[in-house]
Amino acid sequence: MSLKVSDIGEKELVKYIIANSNDIIPDDTAITKLNDSNLISTCDMLIQSRHFPKNMSYFEMGFKSVTVNVSDLAAMGAKPLGFLLSIAMPKNLSMDSFKEIISGVLEACDYYSIPLIGGDTNEASEIIISGTALGLCDKPLMKNTYELDDLLVLTGDIGQAALGFNLEVHDNVYVNKTLKPIARLNEGILINQAGATSATDITDGLASELYEIKKDGFGFIIYEEMLEITDEYKQLAEKLGLNYLDLIFHVGEDFELLFTISNDNLDKLNIDYKVIGQVTDSNKVELILENGFVEEIKNKGYEHYVSE
Amino acid sequence: MSLKVSDIGEKELVKYIIANSNDIIPDDTAITKLNDSNLISTCDMLIQSRHFPKNMSYFEMGFKSVTVNVSDLAAMGAKPLGFLLSIAMPKNLSMDSFKEIISGVLEACDYYSIPLIGGDTNEASEIIISGTALGLCDKPLMKNTYELDDLLVLTGDIGQAALGFNLEVHDNVYVNKTLKPIARLNEGILINQAGATSATDITDGLASELYEIKKDGFGFIIYEEMLEITDEYKQLAEKLGLNYLDLIFHVGEDFELLFTISNDNLDKLNIDYKVIGQVTDSNKVELILENGFVEEIKNKGYEHYVSE
Repeated sequence: MSLKVSDIGEKELVKYIIANSNDIIPDDTAITKLNDSNLISTCDMLIQSRHFPKNMSYFEMGFKSVTVNVSDLAAMGAKPLGFLLSIAMPKNLSMDSFKEIISGVLEACDYYSIPLIGGDTNEASEIIISGTALGLCDKPLMKNTYELDDLLVLTGDIGQAALGFNLEVHDNVYVNKTLKPIARLNEGILINQAGATSATDITDGLASELYEIKKDGFGFIIYEEMLEITDEYKQLAEKLGLNYLDLIFHVGEDFELLFTISNDNLDKLNIDYKVIGQVTDSNKVELILENGFVEEIKNKGYEHYVSE
Repeated sequence: MSLKVSDIGEKELVKYIIANSNDIIPDDTAITKLNDSNLISTCDMLIQSRHFPKNMSYFEMGFKSVTVNVSDLAAMGAKPLGFLLSIAMPKNLSMDSFKEIISGVLEACDYYSIPLIGGDTNEASEIIISGTALGLCDKPLMKNTYELDDLLVLTGDIGQAALGFNLEVHDNVYVNKTLKPIARLNEGILINQAGATSATDITDGLASELYEIKKDGFGFIIYEEMLEITDEYKQLAEKLGLNYLDLIFHVGEDFELLFTISNDNLDKLNIDYKVIGQVTDSNKVELILENGFVEEIKNKGYEHYVSE
């Protein structure tokens, strides 16, 4: 039997594309030198059955399609330049629903101060929204340019969307994060100005992102205590029969930024942030539990968390 | 019954988006002022069941996804800067087929000298390829900036793809044009340098494009004789029971450029070209038939050609 794309997995398919191109820089976005600055460009496709929870409104679909692309600009510390929308829909979609999607796109563009500069429509069996975000950045924040002992920092709480996907109630902080995530665009610009040494956005879960940015000979140590996981969070996870560390490390869709910065530059950060750990030379991703035990975090993406 | 998107049609849906944005310039691409030049950006989505003929190879699908986007750069007279690929596929697609698509994308990028700067994959029920082409242009060629008496010019033959879609034989000039259309990227740059006054690419058929670029008070006159339709073309159309003028005016997918230029600048054109008519002030799109009769061309897109 011949090999299928599903036998390979998306990350490996992307690696195949990168390996066969001479011009792709493997980071959150493409970077193109332009005079004294860099054009930052990124293109993400959202597919209804895969990326939109069943309880998501059309407005929220439109908003999220901007957020996922702008979040990649944020991860580079780039300033927004423009957004291009390409949307495919079933032909029996109501005009009202279409207008709601566009309204979500426009409100998001307004929120992020990124002008909607292009729009195209198409017909498909489900809603597919492909967005392209363009930005400018003099000194893009790469994924893995940190140094030993740099601090590992987050722009906000993680794991909220992970919990929200499992909750049936509406209108709480967790569900809102799954339905209307917000990209940390201004924070990206500010951490770049403060001298952050690297950054990425958390879409696939903290563990997956840590392995994405990990380079040979370097490691990370994370302190559970510093994640400031609330009792409410732990209790909600327990009620659902879920491991709260699982939710935090191996789900995703937070769209928070994970960045590194030297201890000396920390007080230049003019944003809310949470130091969660440090860059080490252990070649491992380790978690210091609240009880003092050390666990090695595996790169399992959305799969079950297993401690060693 | 509430209104569906199919009751409105794609052109009107795009107009809705444009009308609700303050930042979309309605032309072949988006244009963003950048220092002394302009960033040209465009995003087109191709969906297997809609845009790829059944006899198209995976390689050709990849190639075409670049061509349709690069053709929009060509229509602006822009120089290529980069191409971003976002592809969704059924999970049972073979790795060999995926590699063929990527190979087609890479060969097209090489052909057009546009670097592949980003790639992303996704899962969907059919193959969906969304491409973004980026370019630079000091003086973009708009659609409707022509003047009275400017000549109406084509970069090559039109109607070949229209005929190819209806032929079952392989490997002739018509079928090749449907399976592997080529964007007129270099020609776009050269006609811009020669002082063309406007340009667009022919994707929806000559009639549709003429109405797309038509402005109030202006019209066009086309001379059938100048289209240089061969006897072979007419005979093949007749055998298929098709009206050859129908194929030429109301189908599309030629990816030739339709542009205007003053008579004085015509000899500056350093490309193969075909003058087919002229800009008038008749407020009509008229065709002078080979027999001398004049017909008014209607804006029917892919629908049947009707003369008055």
